[in-house]
Amino acid sequence: MNDAANPLWGGRFAGGASAIMTEINASIGFDKALWRQDIAGSRAHAAMLVAQGVLSAQDGAAIAQGLDQVAAEIDAGKLVEDPALEDIHMHIETRLFALVGDAAKRLHTARSRNDQVATDFRLWVRDAIDALDVRMAALQRALVLRAEAEAETVLPGFTHLQVAQPVTLGHHLMAYCTMIGRDRSRLADCRTRLNECPLGAAALAGTSFPIDRFSTARALGFDRPTANSLDSVSDRDFALEFMAACALAGLHLSRLAEEFIVWASQPYRFVSLPDDYSTGSSIMPQKRNPDAAELVRAKAGHLLAGFQRLAVVMKGLPLAYSKDMQEDKVPTFEAFHTLDLSLAAMTGMVETVTFNRDAMRTAAMSGYSTATDLADWLVRAAGVPFREAHHITGRAVRLAEERGCRLDALSLGDLQAVDPRITQGVFAVLSVDASVASRTSYGGTAPDQVRARIADVRRELGL
Amino acid sequence: MNDAANPLWGGRFAGGASAIMTEINASIGFDKALWRQDIAGSRAHAAMLVAQGVLSAQDGAAIAQGLDQVAAEIDAGKLVEDPALEDIHMHIETRLFALVGDAAKRLHTARSRNDQVATDFRLWVRDAIDALDVRMAALQRALVLRAEAEAETVLPGFTHLQVAQPVTLGHHLMAYCTMIGRDRSRLADCRTRLNECPLGAAALAGTSFPIDRFSTARALGFDRPTANSLDSVSDRDFALEFMAACALAGLHLSRLAEEFIVWASQPYRFVSLPDDYSTGSSIMPQKRNPDAAELVRAKAGHLLAGFQRLAVVMKGLPLAYSKDMQEDKVPTFEAFHTLDLSLAAMTGMVETVTFNRDAMRTAAMSGYSTATDLADWLVRAAGVPFREAHHITGRAVRLAEERGCRLDALSLGDLQAVDPRITQGVFAVLSVDASVASRTSYGGTAPDQVRARIADVRRELGL
Amino acid sequence: MNDAANPLWGGRFAGGASAIMTEINASIGFDKALWRQDIAGSRAHAAMLVAQGVLSAQDGAAIAQGLDQVAAEIDAGKLVEDPALEDIHMHIETRLFALVGDAAKRLHTARSRNDQVATDFRLWVRDAIDALDVRMAALQRALVLRAEAEAETVLPGFTHLQVAQPVTLGHHLMAYCTMIGRDRSRLADCRTRLNECPLGAAALAGTSFPIDRFSTARALGFDRPTANSLDSVSDRDFALEFMAACALAGLHLSRLAEEFIVWASQPYRFVSLPDDYSTGSSIMPQKRNPDAAELVRAKAGHLLAGFQRLAVVMKGLPLAYSKDMQEDKVPTFEAFHTLDLSLAAMTGMVETVTFNRDAMRTAAMSGYSTATDLADWLVRAAGVPFREAHHITGRAVRLAEERGCRLDALSLGDLQAVDPRITQGVFAVLSVDASVASRTSYGGTAPDQVRARIADVRRELGL
Amino acid sequence: MNDAANPLWGGRFAGGASAIMTEINASIGFDKALWRQDIAGSRAHAAMLVAQGVLSAQDGAAIAQGLDQVAAEIDAGKLVEDPALEDIHMHIETRLFALVGDAAKRLHTARSRNDQVATDFRLWVRDAIDALDVRMAALQRALVLRAEAEAETVLPGFTHLQVAQPVTLGHHLMAYCTMIGRDRSRLADCRTRLNECPLGAAALAGTSFPIDRFSTARALGFDRPTANSLDSVSDRDFALEFMAACALAGLHLSRLAEEFIVWASQPYRFVSLPDDYSTGSSIMPQKRNPDAAELVRAKAGHLLAGFQRLAVVMKGLPLAYSKDMQEDKVPTFEAFHTLDLSLAAMTGMVETVTFNRDAMRTAAMSGYSTATDLADWLVRAAGVPFREAHHITGRAVRLAEERGCRLDALSLGDLQAVDPRITQGVFAVLSVDASVASRTSYGGTAPDQVRARIADVRRELGL
Repeated sequence: MNDAANPLWGGRFAGGASAIMTEINASIGFDKALWRQDIAGSRAHAAMLVAQGVLSAQDGAAIAQGLDQVAAEIDAGKLVEDPALEDIHMHIETRLFALVGDAAKRLHTARSRNDQVATDFRLWVRDAIDALDVRMAALQRALVLRAEAEAETVLPGFTHLQVAQPVTLGHHLMAYCTMIGRDRSRLADCRTRLNECPLGAAALAGTSFPIDRFSTARALGFDRPTANSLDSVSDRDFALEFMAACALAGLHLSRLAEEFIVWASQPYRFVSLPDDYSTGSSIMPQKRNPDAAELVRAKAGHLLAGFQRLAVVMKGLPLAYSKDMQEDKVPTFEAFHTLDLSLAAMTGMVETVTFNRDAMRTAAMSGYSTATDLADWLVRAAGVPFREAHHITGRAVRLAEERGCRLDALSLGDLQAVDPRITQGVFAVLSVDASVASRTSYGGTAPDQVRARIADVRRELGL
Repeated sequence: MNDAANPLWGGRFAGGASAIMTEINASIGFDKALWRQDIAGSRAHAAMLVAQGVLSAQDGAAIAQGLDQVAAEIDAGKLVEDPALEDIHMHIETRLFALVGDAAKRLHTARSRNDQVATDFRLWVRDAIDALDVRMAALQRALVLRAEAEAETVLPGFTHLQVAQPVTLGHHLMAYCTMIGRDRSRLADCRTRLNECPLGAAALAGTSFPIDRFSTARALGFDRPTANSLDSVSDRDFALEFMAACALAGLHLSRLAEEFIVWASQPYRFVSLPDDYSTGSSIMPQKRNPDAAELVRAKAGHLLAGFQRLAVVMKGLPLAYSKDMQEDKVPTFEAFHTLDLSLAAMTGMVETVTFNRDAMRTAAMSGYSTATDLADWLVRAAGVPFREAHHITGRAVRLAEERGCRLDALSLGDLQAVDPRITQGVFAVLSVDASVASRTSYGGTAPDQVRARIADVRRELGL
Repeated sequence: MNDAANPLWGGRFAGGASAIMTEINASIGFDKALWRQDIAGSRAHAAMLVAQGVLSAQDGAAIAQGLDQVAAEIDAGKLVEDPALEDIHMHIETRLFALVGDAAKRLHTARSRNDQVATDFRLWVRDAIDALDVRMAALQRALVLRAEAEAETVLPGFTHLQVAQPVTLGHHLMAYCTMIGRDRSRLADCRTRLNECPLGAAALAGTSFPIDRFSTARALGFDRPTANSLDSVSDRDFALEFMAACALAGLHLSRLAEEFIVWASQPYRFVSLPDDYSTGSSIMPQKRNPDAAELVRAKAGHLLAGFQRLAVVMKGLPLAYSKDMQEDKVPTFEAFHTLDLSLAAMTGMVETVTFNRDAMRTAAMSGYSTATDLADWLVRAAGVPFREAHHITGRAVRLAEERGCRLDALSLGDLQAVDPRITQGVFAVLSVDASVASRTSYGGTAPDQVRARIADVRRELGL
Repeated sequence: MNDAANPLWGGRFAGGASAIMTEINASIGFDKALWRQDIAGSRAHAAMLVAQGVLSAQDGAAIAQGLDQVAAEIDAGKLVEDPALEDIHMHIETRLFALVGDAAKRLHTARSRNDQVATDFRLWVRDAIDALDVRMAALQRALVLRAEAEAETVLPGFTHLQVAQPVTLGHHLMAYCTMIGRDRSRLADCRTRLNECPLGAAALAGTSFPIDRFSTARALGFDRPTANSLDSVSDRDFALEFMAACALAGLHLSRLAEEFIVWASQPYRFVSLPDDYSTGSSIMPQKRNPDAAELVRAKAGHLLAGFQRLAVVMKGLPLAYSKDMQEDKVPTFEAFHTLDLSLAAMTGMVETVTFNRDAMRTAAMSGYSTATDLADWLVRAAGVPFREAHHITGRAVRLAEERGCRLDALSLGDLQAVDPRITQGVFAVLSVDASVASRTSYGGTAPDQVRARIADVRRELGL
């Protein structure tokens, strides 16, 4: 190969060692996302130092004012990235020094980059959890609204993607609402667990300055300071737990996405996906490729890989801080953005998808979906043991299959030939509507049950 | 290749399709682990059916008695595995029928394999969490006991595996105690979230029988029944969350294992690993290979892969039950056993490892580990801005390096030549003991802090 | 929690440290799978030692005879596992000593457990590759035979699971045959790369005995000895590469499995899965749950996780052998068995699945699947630029949609109203049969192309 | 939570559905990396269409010229990204139309986005492999040069990170050279396997235009066209295999990185890492944090996760193209850049690291590292069976341990007291130099062997 000719080879690292080191080492390219959290942390730290007499009130005021200005500048898009300054913390500190001079040099008293980063990153993950919680609540709301309107819509309930029993669409949608509820609960637990403040752990051993870690913790909205300084700077559990929770949420979305894709396929036609979340084809105008659903399904891969990526980094790392841990941020940031986007897209799809009730109903009536109802009727009305009732039902279905008709199209005589204990009353359970209406056990698919469970969720969500 | 000659080819699947299907489909080989949970679930279900008038008291009594006998038989090792009976549920039901006849046929009324399996599996994971919690508490206890005895033992605190600042061994061990505390908390959250009873969801839609799901939930120690029947039989979040929590615990153990391995290496010699957890060499009797620690470190791979394995299975699965989900149990069972064993091994190692205090102390005195103390002293005692103090310290260390001596071996004159503001008082902070004693911030490494935090943990653990 | 009451806690590790160490350390439970390879390796090593004058001919003969007997015993199921003997190598050596005495003590001259295990394991993986190659060839054969019979069967080709263009079923099946061909090629490359013999690397440094590594390599069917002794005992690339190749094959099978599951779903009914690979329902006799296909789909998770599991173990391991590497065998063995079983099941399904040609054809005619053919005709026959032809076609499809008819049911007048350049000739391309017949580009879906490509594969496979 | 207050929530997706769809759907942000490959593909396609008479020579010339100009513009940084144009292909086509008008509309004849993307992406991966091959050869060269200079440098060979036997540093470095050799071989195999051209597969079914796929394949440097059009647009094996190979290479680098980190740790001090690849500490000037090595170690996580990420996406995807597959590019691009950077950093470190030969030698003499040499001498010189020789050696080492001396510091009398068969000759094998010099088996650690193997590699590498 002619090296020079390879477009991917090109002039990479022409600057030699220093260019390589800058690229592998500098984090400003991604950790600038932490700027708000970094400034909040510095504000709290400086205020505490003043209160504890470590910093003069004058220096404290200068720092506070300087940080306000730095924040205003960054917010206005005026951060100038300089790889030589490595990370966002150094960028802010350098700018602060330019603004307020020597006071800036005193800000780093009784803290170190290690506890500073850990604090910023926890604050960021906490914000991410809060933002995702809002997004998930919106998806739940969308599901609840559609579920209410479809509490009586019948579609086939599948097991093994084979028609099994009729269910209601409202019930089906509420299954996803339940999953998202668990996702929110998992993120809430993660938030509680991470909500301890590492600031003051310093490099790894704590500090000899008379700091008040409870005060900075409080100022930053943490429940308490962390209890062990070595752990404080070495711990990335909070990011891993966050990513594991995101991955599970991603799996849930992938399942709903899969259903939308299969349901939109021509042989199903249970749904028509909205134009906003599809791509068309200029030559097949009726074709709506479910691109958004496919991408949401695929993003589960990214979310799973994110957890894996950081977990591999942390495996076997000795205490305390190692530079390996700088690889924590990108996968965490990406997990948030990926899930945030997937939730937004799925919420939009749920809100606007068209349900083709006729196609669903027609499919629900296929596949002898009420066979279980016949069996249950035999147990209930005729006192047949369950396992025996199953065998009788099997014979009835086989007969219907021979006749090429639905189960409720067999005559009473036909059914009595299968088992003489069958009476006219059986027909009351063989329609798909009767079937779903009868599933009134708690959490069952009967429209009334579905509405009752929706009411519970409405209360929880404050809808 | 001569097929017949390949030892891995051999007579596999000589039985053709049925042999293949049996091997891929039958789960009795692993789901027999669920037998206790299955019998408990059936007992609760039968009792509820009697209370609701769905089952006669007579049948209920026969079933209860029969289940007792089946349990006694399995406990005595008398379960005869028959792949034709596929799973543990069918094994138990078949045996029950042999014992009590027709009543057994009525047991399956108003339930299905899908909700039965989901219930059994949740009960199993709940038991696994409880067992791991005991194991983790034992490891915490072992760490606390060793930490107390080593509250004043000084070793180098490393960052980047480079000597950074002296810390106390008790503090270092308590960092792991803190991690395990988070692991327990995570598993407890998982337990709370999973503790809802799917029994009564039936195949997927609920049932038309007048069952009382709250009653069976209560009888099995669940907090409540699950709220959506489709989700009940499709959900494996609890296993995934369990495995994610196990994976994080495994990462923590891998870090401690790595430290033991590095510390046992001849250039370090910080620890001597106990014979019980090492393997020797017949020709190098002083060699103690840290096999147990290496295996604990490696098991993190198994734990991570377990989560991954089930997550991949669940990705994109439409509702409700699909057979794919049978792949849930083996990784979950293995995660429990792997973590259980790793915790037991690590607890044993912590209890019996010999700490070589002299080697630790000697190492702590290398690498100018108290340089930060000099810098902090300059800030505190001489009012030098922190960033400037750092530069002064750098010059002092460079001087010591040129002299080939430790920092506290420089004369006051030497130090004053570096910066005239340095006084005799500085020597009070330059020894490793002074250094660790000064880190009194909350969660810091000072022996008193370590003892105070140990006291907190003792209270929490009830030690 | 009452510990004793927890069924998962029970009496585990009542034996204390030694019980824990035995469980975590002993490998006989799984590495017994290596017995044939271990004996082959010892035979070759002993013969070489005799040839080199390191071992007497008498000792060599005794060892050879003894190994024959050990092999016969193990083959007859007479291996008695003893955890105290740790691994299969020690079991065989101990038994050999019992049979031939002191000569057995000389067998281990100039080798060590490290190179012995590495050799055995490579031989095992090589055998596994050979066995999988046979299994994959069988699946290719099954695909070719079915493809030939379905070279003209039309079904919808999907993109985004939306009907796109008609394709032939033979072509679709041959896509999988092509994938399996790549899988075989990947495994063959892996085989070539692993086929170097580590025997003689000894513990890690080579040996001072005058051994002939080329001779043992040859005797064991290796292409050459490995070139670096440290690498020889530290390398597990061959297992990782093997598992990565298995994972890719598993992905291919998961895709075909997904298609069978979707195709077997009632709204599709493209296929009826054979009874041998389905499970029925006693009450819905027409229901055939595609259990085998679902399990094959799910096994992709196991295969992916296997690669991940060992990769995590190897990350960051210093040279040379570490005990962590004992975690290499179980995932590798499982990968083989999982893929072997999945291939067998999929081959069986392919051989016996029923294709419902009518359902496929009907579906192919839906969705305006020949719209592209109209566009291409406009380019070819009327010289319309491609992008413009697309727009014209879009208008024609929209018209058909309004009329509620298929594209070829529009009249020539209708079409000319859309674009006057359309002539009667267009109808020759608007049927699904004409469409597939026209795709004669190399590798296209035209029946003749499919047959030509099948002929190529038949030649390659020697069918 | 006050939504508006959350900095991560902000105004995301204020544009509603269309903003969400643009963000999830548009790929221009990353697939612009394919611009060179896309233009090359279009050039070859247009030339073939002209040759086949599908396109006029005039249109062909206009397209060729237009593509040259587009390439020049993009190369000059003038590509204006427009999310509405979705991807790089549409950007280029749109620009081409602006430049050459209607001819541009004819370029897409007989191809589709699906085969176009597959072609571009294969070309990109091929370029990436070629670039990595150069980078890997450079690392091998660096290893060879350092290994030659250290062919006689003795350091302890570790197993379990315990001193085992002395080895030479040249030998140790060449172990990594061997690993990288396998990595190159794996990538080369991947390159061969991917080097088939999908162009002409069109959307999924091939085309009815009289194209010559062999001609475009040749023009683009492919060995042949792909054999099945459905597979051509659905296959991402090449990206997965590429990422698996990158992951293995990453594991190798992580091992060397781990060694550098441990070796740089104060208790070892085997190496001093170069300033260029370390970060210092302003207060501990002797401290050189091995940041680059730590980051290289950590990047193994990214590389492993990349493979996982795409593998999860592909699991269970039905044929042919699904939008999920758009998630293929980012992980593949990142894998290349991550490995490329890691290789560059590691090459730099290898070239410039300082080896502290004295510290290595001193460590090699500890731990009774020549005990095996004593055992082997007993076998060779005194005819003692190997297993017995081991026991004798054990006793000798225990004696040395009691005396607190090295093995070669025992007197002949001492040794003869352990076993009378020991003679003066034994002292010739007990020094570390004698030990390494004696390991002359092929691939062993003896300096002459190391030099011979280096010579082999030099020949292979053309050094």
